[in-house]
Amino acid sequence: MKPIDSERLHEECGVMAVVNHPEAPRLTTLGLAALQHRGQESAGLAVADGHVVHSHRAMGYVSDALTDEVVRGLKGHLAIGHVRYSTTGSSNLRNAQPIHVTYKRGSLAIAHNGNLVNAQTLRREMENEGSIFNTTNDSEVILHLVARSRQETIDRALAEALRQVEGAFSLLVINPDTVMVARDPRGFRPLCLGKLDGAWVAASETCALDMIGARYERQVDPGEMVVLHADGRMDSYRWADEQPASMCIFEYVYFSRPDSTIYGRSVDQVRRRMGEALGREAPADADVVIGVPDSSNTASLGYSRVTGIRWELGLIRNHYVGRTFIRPSQEVRDFSVRKKYNPVRHVLQGKRVVVVDDSIVRGTTMRKLVKIIRQAGATEVHLRISSPPITHSCYYGIDTPIRRELIASSHTVPEIAAYLQVDSLAYLSIEGLMSSVQATEGFCRACFTGEYPIAPSGVGKDVFESETAPQTPSS
Amino acid sequence: MKPIDSERLHEECGVMAVVNHPEAPRLTTLGLAALQHRGQESAGLAVADGHVVHSHRAMGYVSDALTDEVVRGLKGHLAIGHVRYSTTGSSNLRNAQPIHVTYKRGSLAIAHNGNLVNAQTLRREMENEGSIFNTTNDSEVILHLVARSRQETIDRALAEALRQVEGAFSLLVINPDTVMVARDPRGFRPLCLGKLDGAWVAASETCALDMIGARYERQVDPGEMVVLHADGRMDSYRWADEQPASMCIFEYVYFSRPDSTIYGRSVDQVRRRMGEALGREAPADADVVIGVPDSSNTASLGYSRVTGIRWELGLIRNHYVGRTFIRPSQEVRDFSVRKKYNPVRHVLQGKRVVVVDDSIVRGTTMRKLVKIIRQAGATEVHLRISSPPITHSCYYGIDTPIRRELIASSHTVPEIAAYLQVDSLAYLSIEGLMSSVQATEGFCRACFTGEYPIAPSGVGKDVFESETAPQTPSS
Amino acid sequence: MKPIDSERLHEECGVMAVVNHPEAPRLTTLGLAALQHRGQESAGLAVADGHVVHSHRAMGYVSDALTDEVVRGLKGHLAIGHVRYSTTGSSNLRNAQPIHVTYKRGSLAIAHNGNLVNAQTLRREMENEGSIFNTTNDSEVILHLVARSRQETIDRALAEALRQVEGAFSLLVINPDTVMVARDPRGFRPLCLGKLDGAWVAASETCALDMIGARYERQVDPGEMVVLHADGRMDSYRWADEQPASMCIFEYVYFSRPDSTIYGRSVDQVRRRMGEALGREAPADADVVIGVPDSSNTASLGYSRVTGIRWELGLIRNHYVGRTFIRPSQEVRDFSVRKKYNPVRHVLQGKRVVVVDDSIVRGTTMRKLVKIIRQAGATEVHLRISSPPITHSCYYGIDTPIRRELIASSHTVPEIAAYLQVDSLAYLSIEGLMSSVQATEGFCRACFTGEYPIAPSGVGKDVFESETAPQTPSS
Amino acid sequence: MKPIDSERLHEECGVMAVVNHPEAPRLTTLGLAALQHRGQESAGLAVADGHVVHSHRAMGYVSDALTDEVVRGLKGHLAIGHVRYSTTGSSNLRNAQPIHVTYKRGSLAIAHNGNLVNAQTLRREMENEGSIFNTTNDSEVILHLVARSRQETIDRALAEALRQVEGAFSLLVINPDTVMVARDPRGFRPLCLGKLDGAWVAASETCALDMIGARYERQVDPGEMVVLHADGRMDSYRWADEQPASMCIFEYVYFSRPDSTIYGRSVDQVRRRMGEALGREAPADADVVIGVPDSSNTASLGYSRVTGIRWELGLIRNHYVGRTFIRPSQEVRDFSVRKKYNPVRHVLQGKRVVVVDDSIVRGTTMRKLVKIIRQAGATEVHLRISSPPITHSCYYGIDTPIRRELIASSHTVPEIAAYLQVDSLAYLSIEGLMSSVQATEGFCRACFTGEYPIAPSGVGKDVFESETAPQTPSS
Repeated sequence: MKPIDSERLHEECGVMAVVNHPEAPRLTTLGLAALQHRGQESAGLAVADGHVVHSHRAMGYVSDALTDEVVRGLKGHLAIGHVRYSTTGSSNLRNAQPIHVTYKRGSLAIAHNGNLVNAQTLRREMENEGSIFNTTNDSEVILHLVARSRQETIDRALAEALRQVEGAFSLLVINPDTVMVARDPRGFRPLCLGKLDGAWVAASETCALDMIGARYERQVDPGEMVVLHADGRMDSYRWADEQPASMCIFEYVYFSRPDSTIYGRSVDQVRRRMGEALGREAPADADVVIGVPDSSNTASLGYSRVTGIRWELGLIRNHYVGRTFIRPSQEVRDFSVRKKYNPVRHVLQGKRVVVVDDSIVRGTTMRKLVKIIRQAGATEVHLRISSPPITHSCYYGIDTPIRRELIASSHTVPEIAAYLQVDSLAYLSIEGLMSSVQATEGFCRACFTGEYPIAPSGVGKDVFESETAPQTPSS
Repeated sequence: MKPIDSERLHEECGVMAVVNHPEAPRLTTLGLAALQHRGQESAGLAVADGHVVHSHRAMGYVSDALTDEVVRGLKGHLAIGHVRYSTTGSSNLRNAQPIHVTYKRGSLAIAHNGNLVNAQTLRREMENEGSIFNTTNDSEVILHLVARSRQETIDRALAEALRQVEGAFSLLVINPDTVMVARDPRGFRPLCLGKLDGAWVAASETCALDMIGARYERQVDPGEMVVLHADGRMDSYRWADEQPASMCIFEYVYFSRPDSTIYGRSVDQVRRRMGEALGREAPADADVVIGVPDSSNTASLGYSRVTGIRWELGLIRNHYVGRTFIRPSQEVRDFSVRKKYNPVRHVLQGKRVVVVDDSIVRGTTMRKLVKIIRQAGATEVHLRISSPPITHSCYYGIDTPIRRELIASSHTVPEIAAYLQVDSLAYLSIEGLMSSVQATEGFCRACFTGEYPIAPSGVGKDVFESETAPQTPSS
Repeated sequence: MKPIDSERLHEECGVMAVVNHPEAPRLTTLGLAALQHRGQESAGLAVADGHVVHSHRAMGYVSDALTDEVVRGLKGHLAIGHVRYSTTGSSNLRNAQPIHVTYKRGSLAIAHNGNLVNAQTLRREMENEGSIFNTTNDSEVILHLVARSRQETIDRALAEALRQVEGAFSLLVINPDTVMVARDPRGFRPLCLGKLDGAWVAASETCALDMIGARYERQVDPGEMVVLHADGRMDSYRWADEQPASMCIFEYVYFSRPDSTIYGRSVDQVRRRMGEALGREAPADADVVIGVPDSSNTASLGYSRVTGIRWELGLIRNHYVGRTFIRPSQEVRDFSVRKKYNPVRHVLQGKRVVVVDDSIVRGTTMRKLVKIIRQAGATEVHLRISSPPITHSCYYGIDTPIRRELIASSHTVPEIAAYLQVDSLAYLSIEGLMSSVQATEGFCRACFTGEYPIAPSGVGKDVFESETAPQTPSS
Repeated sequence: MKPIDSERLHEECGVMAVVNHPEAPRLTTLGLAALQHRGQESAGLAVADGHVVHSHRAMGYVSDALTDEVVRGLKGHLAIGHVRYSTTGSSNLRNAQPIHVTYKRGSLAIAHNGNLVNAQTLRREMENEGSIFNTTNDSEVILHLVARSRQETIDRALAEALRQVEGAFSLLVINPDTVMVARDPRGFRPLCLGKLDGAWVAASETCALDMIGARYERQVDPGEMVVLHADGRMDSYRWADEQPASMCIFEYVYFSRPDSTIYGRSVDQVRRRMGEALGREAPADADVVIGVPDSSNTASLGYSRVTGIRWELGLIRNHYVGRTFIRPSQEVRDFSVRKKYNPVRHVLQGKRVVVVDDSIVRGTTMRKLVKIIRQAGATEVHLRISSPPITHSCYYGIDTPIRRELIASSHTVPEIAAYLQVDSLAYLSIEGLMSSVQATEGFCRACFTGEYPIAPSGVGKDVFESETAPQTPSS
């Protein structure tokens, strides 16, 4: 439905909650809009007023799915929300979140960022015991586990459920008078807490707090359960034993907004240091440095700072064209790239250009971009990537193609350089990457190394989309 | 959402299936359009191609919910469909059918006409065992029971499930290569089988068979399970012990279309005999007989035949106005009735008029209609109702108001006549009703007598809509 | 866009006005809904509040085009409205009415029922003088003439404009503080006046007055100009010399609703007499009489009365299927007719059936209908048409096919009977028709006789749709 | 409808044409998407195939108004298109372009960027002569003049029409086999020509040529008429005597994209020089320079270069939030600005910050932005504006507020600085501006100086929106 940039990995979700605020549904919606870069396929809201949970989900951007009319119809002072990205395969309303069900204690809705590695196994077990599933979403497994729990309180039931699943999750769960906020024991995906006057706020990134004027408090700890009550009280406890952290390092490379604070560190600062490390590791004899906008601007500034090569705005992003589905049937030259970027000719003409980008997935788009930069007059193109080569797929909530489509999984750097037709190519080293986050451990970097913190039992996200899966072509 | 005629009881659903036909989805949609009078709130389709089940549901008429584009996107040679009516309370996409889930054997969707009287009890039991529910629909209970069954085949699993539920149901269940057609042991709601070339068809009423040119074969027997295979084979067996039949007699009074055959009898013929019996029981000294269009035309013709009073077209129905949501804010005189009917003045002017209607629910609309008929010049208005007074609510799939809103539950016929301001009022007797169906037993007539064939354990259809129920304001 | 019944002629428009009422826009919209049978392709409203004219037009039914939200946005105590039918060719928003323009005196909008026979000539003249046209509608010509007039008042300017056009028109024109109501000197198309408290109402048919509870006053006279002022005053004068009346007799045959009063006569009464005259002219040896619903019910009742043959409900109309655009790609047997009507089998089975219909255009649909009636078991089918054979096209506002497509233009009655495969066929005679309207003159019956009251200078309604015409594919 | 940034002036239109290409409608639509920054309220297309002109216009972005389905329905190898911005007042479909009419020679459609200063006078004259107008658009005046012309060819007729109008216009006119491209004699608004294989392309900015891979040829000269024939031939001649050029200098300040070439100069280069001149004129004692994204990035880079102060990404733009209409009813702190920008805290914290923006209109938004920058920790805020103070309204196609709302029309620079609460404020001088465009004359800079090249006879763009104007609330 939405045009997908095959040259980027994609975050699968963003989540947001506001508790104890008369405008919780509106504020949550605004926060979701600030998190839209984390998922553009569907958006949803579940709200509660102390007595009942109502919800709405629809395909499309936050602005399309959660219109003013819809949000006005959802009354409550507690709210959770979700934005979702997915590839075309399982892209339908049925899989949008929050998922909203009833069970023995009443009504419950869940918004989940991440991916469970043992969901398939659990699901098969539960199906064999007679359970039915309405979605192909792994989050539904958690709801089943909560419903089966004999714990007396909902948060203890959720904790019990979470102890049975493995993988990556930053979760929001709402019932009529509480929002529970939980993060997996390894902290794969980010999740933070903030306050707005007497209200509690939770969000994937701090830019969502900033949007509504909330104050950043802290990140939710890996293995922590935070219970936000309708009346403003907050409880917190550990639901899991401590484990080595495996925070997704790609949040710093590409996913998160530079104005966000993630895992307690400024994304802008970390990303800047990646560019600086890259500059130290792989300088170039060139006239100008340009970033691929908007995501690589920060790293390219760092590269420029360290190398002393002048930073320039060499590519302009076509913000409006992305939504246009018109495509010339006689393919215009390199249309797919032009649709995204236009070079500033006189900036590039006659120049030896360093292009800084954050990552290379398949290489096809980058190859076209290099061609366009050359057509604009660049005499040399030196490509610098502010992260190591992506050689492995992710099983923790990031949409990566299967391994063989990752160009770096089967090609050396010189081979990639030849394919891309660049004069030189360099990636940031793993060491450079780690020095940029100023840590030696605590991060998942499996996409660069293949060292998976948790063994994936099944496969990717289409695991429930067997021949028997429910699918709606649209709704 | 849709304007509701508070002077009528409402059927809650219509169902349709086509198996082993390359155009199954299209033909099912056309059949649903012919059954639209049974439910106008939502419509849905589930199709299968031997390998996978796909589904689509949406709010609105068949023409809005199942557009050509949607139906073209649903490929398969097996299909089931559903139209649903409901009061505003639980009117949302979540409750639309077919309900589509996955379970241990794969994918499954259900379309259900009727109401289970022990659904609440079963649901509470299952919730207590840890099950979760996605809808407030009693049909979801059946899916849970099927999923829990250890029977080896899907139809045997369905039969086992059905043996645990009580109440009224005419069911269609689809999996990737079979459609199962089942009817409750008392046969509360109608369901028939037909053939179209090599294809099998099932539908609530025969008018849906006629629409697609299918040949009527027979009704599905109460307690029968019919298994329609993707390749055209058909199996059938009894899944329940024989029980006394309790076919809903109101199908003849109002719900079914006069061109349909229901429970093996022509609706037109039965309805005609009701008018004739009414004419014999309660003749009138009058100049013309009119029916309230379109539903009472048939009975009024019977009344005219027996009494010899001239039949006339005295009221014209505004077919297009019903969909208009414009309402004058300074209420125009008797607007709600004028919106539906306009009198033909010269037919009524100076005449003593017999008005035949099929039933009276609350009496408020009828009172306004009587006033309009008098304003058009009628000198006397004699109201004749072609069924007995409705004194009790229905628990088997018909939307009736709570008892105290039924005018006949607490008022005598003379009191009702006084309220309606008619010169005389008579209802058809129970005996007259039974003679019209040419039977002394085999029918449920609880709404007239309070003699419920199966004791309702819970209450009406809002039973799952407690404070904790999931509700979407729209989707 | 909308399914078209090729076996009927089609009215092209209905108009409605309410002046001096705080709810004028709402009431006008309700009136348009009552006139929906006169045009289902587009609907529009122009309102005024004494200072400014606002308007809205859209494709579709009144309920779709003039939603509550749209009507709430149109404030004023004067309003005119329009519903339009058209064949696919010129079916687009650009041609929807009211047409709304500015000119030297300010703002003006027009709603027009009818067709001008010299519009093409006038348009060419004006184009040659340098005028531009925004629509392919002949009504725009009138606006140009009004704008060119040097008369001091708007109504005198309109009168001057109308003296230059020839043809059929029942017109409503609104400016910021007046609604003008005018009818052509021959009175081709109906138009009536009513009152609702202090408000004036004008409408094509009285059923629109009834809808809003307005009292019928009188018809607008041919050649009359009625000026309705914002403050409730009304002026009236003749703007044209008296001419022989040429009221469209087909309004009685088919277009108007039976509950309307047209040209001062009850449609029901006239239509009934047509059936009676037909019964006297062409009785049949048969068991039952049925009408083709809903339009032929009235005439068939008259036929039954006179012949003594029992009247029956033999065909049920599928009210909901018409809006469905699903069509089986392998054409199901006689689908196009089944989509509209379903026979009541036991009423027809073994019977000799008289089918009364109001007219035959091409004959193709009727042929299929006869086949379906036979399949339902009729042993003989005697077709009786309650008007004479249609042999000529209409140039005064009715959508007729070109002559050669009219089956009666080139075939004798026996030939038509053979084509339709009926046992006998008879049409009402011209004399019978005239006796039914109880007049010998004053009516246009050109479609039956070819005697055109005004010579058509150009052609049909596609006259401005030359290769150069502006067309929007949709809007 | 769309959120409007009150701190910016707004271009009112962008235009695009493709002639002699089988994919002309698609390519034109893509070009319009690249020009979307020039107008986001409505979009339209008029296409021709040698025989007929078809058109479509709708409210909203190009992606919403010109969907793939719409564009597929518009066949032709000639196409013109238009995007429009407007304030809410006159924001309706009626005023969308291209305007499409018929006249004596056939069909004609116009797409117009600019504003005529004598349109009101001409319109009044034509209305007095009996003309009617369908829009409140000044472009309709040109169509009337073309229609009245007695010139033998359409391009000569257009030239004759253009000689009667005064003001700013870059025009595209399409008839069945030609597209005419014309620019006013002073060249107020940009317009350029390009080639794509054998096809001719015209566009407001070169970024639209780049989008479809077309080659930039040259700008259309002021006073030039370019005739592009369906077969690929091109004629060109002067239709007006030479006049001093008055190219809009604000295109360089803000409107045009930096990757475009306008009036033969690279926007990026000119804008860069503005920043450099500003740096020389008004350096600051500060730690970092930031631009207000995205429009001021280029100028801020120039400022940084000259002053040696480090350039930083200090504000992140919320690309997705702009389309969200949700607004907290209890206004969250400085919501309107947060909705657009979020500060990167650690970049600003403890820093003396130079903020470079391109212009100040009312000052209200800037005041909030300064506050947000301070809240993010900036110790000093030095505001530098890369153009002179805006003291006068524009009459040539730019949406400026009335004079008294322009803060610089009635306040000195120190007063503005006080109001904005900045530590220092400086604007670029007129001399600095002119040196940046490397010219002393040839530009209109009336908004900075009040020296209007052509005296405005009437007023702003609401001139036709008197009490009598036709307005549709939506369509």
